[in-house]
Amino acid sequence: MSDMKDIAKQNAIPLPTIRRYPIYLRAIKAKIAGGELHVSSAVLAEELGFDPVLSRKDLAMAGVPGKPRCGYPAKELSEAINRALGWDNPIEAALIGVGSLGCALLGYSGFEEQNLSISAAFDADPAIVGQRVHGVKVRPMEDLPRLISKLKLAIGIITVPSSAAQSCADQLIAAGIKAIWNFAPIQLSVPKGVTVQNVDLAQSLAVLSHSITISG
Amino acid sequence: MSDMKDIAKQNAIPLPTIRRYPIYLRAIKAKIAGGELHVSSAVLAEELGFDPVLSRKDLAMAGVPGKPRCGYPAKELSEAINRALGWDNPIEAALIGVGSLGCALLGYSGFEEQNLSISAAFDADPAIVGQRVHGVKVRPMEDLPRLISKLKLAIGIITVPSSAAQSCADQLIAAGIKAIWNFAPIQLSVPKGVTVQNVDLAQSLAVLSHSITISG
Repeated sequence: MSDMKDIAKQNAIPLPTIRRYPIYLRAIKAKIAGGELHVSSAVLAEELGFDPVLSRKDLAMAGVPGKPRCGYPAKELSEAINRALGWDNPIEAALIGVGSLGCALLGYSGFEEQNLSISAAFDADPAIVGQRVHGVKVRPMEDLPRLISKLKLAIGIITVPSSAAQSCADQLIAAGIKAIWNFAPIQLSVPKGVTVQNVDLAQSLAVLSHSITISG
Repeated sequence: MSDMKDIAKQNAIPLPTIRRYPIYLRAIKAKIAGGELHVSSAVLAEELGFDPVLSRKDLAMAGVPGKPRCGYPAKELSEAINRALGWDNPIEAALIGVGSLGCALLGYSGFEEQNLSISAAFDADPAIVGQRVHGVKVRPMEDLPRLISKLKLAIGIITVPSSAAQSCADQLIAAGIKAIWNFAPIQLSVPKGVTVQNVDLAQSLAVLSHSITISG
């Protein structure tokens, strides 16, 4: 396990490649399911609409040797990508903010492929604390530090209103969390070594609604 | 209304600016709520972590005259941005695919600010058709063309598995939809004049889980 980590560190796979890996992974898995034993970066690039030079570099970074004309062994490549993504081991996440979006994420069962489960939920509102939402008991914020360490939670998911998001991030970081998935529409300020990914549905909706406005 | 559209067309606000507009809008609304009558692009840039030159250009494109030293009239600016985003009028959307993500979006009440409501839901599975999910009745796919035109639905939300997504997109486009919000993790192929925005939760999760893997 720590060898794997060292390899990943040495390779230093760039983030844009990491963001594309889930897309390759699905395509490779579909080919494996279809009985194919080898995949080529050129074929995947064509299928996925990527630049073939880019795809060649992306897949080479997974560290699996490919064969000329034959391509990569499909299963090994998919396992290497899965490992680079950290999806080969279960990941447990804590969710803060059991409002409408928080409930939706707790009920969303689409994270199996990524080996992610949201195993603890927290809320500041005493009226919500103690309830069960999609099988997960909502805990008070005071329990956060203890449960993050006890349950070895690795990712903090923030689904609170903007005004509370920074304070939640601070509490997660103080409790040892190094990866934050932020659904609140603000820029969090975090120390070096903490990774934040923002999902702002309003931003992609903006592009769509604007396009309707300008089209006749 | 058509004048507004002409103005927006002439201005041709670039998409990156449109994507930032929701972020400015929230900050400006917060200032209005705090009693401020004017906002300056420099103050907003500082607060939001944007380059001040970028923010000056972004806000200028909304078409509201600012005053030197005083900034923009806050209410007028927020209304102009709202209009550029197409959020000044109600937008009705059709959702296809009432699985776990589809249900989550139907239950998510966070789209009020954007004036968006998901007024119709469709599924190919006869076992789901006819059920009510968060108050919206699930319809069979055959009803799609008729209801899109009858209810004047402007956005199609795709929450089906990847294998069915392109066919759903084709049906939406055939029914006159020009804006597609795609939550299925594939690249849709659409004709010119149709806007697609992809939301792929696996991609941002990839960055987080990878960061955990490489950090000791």
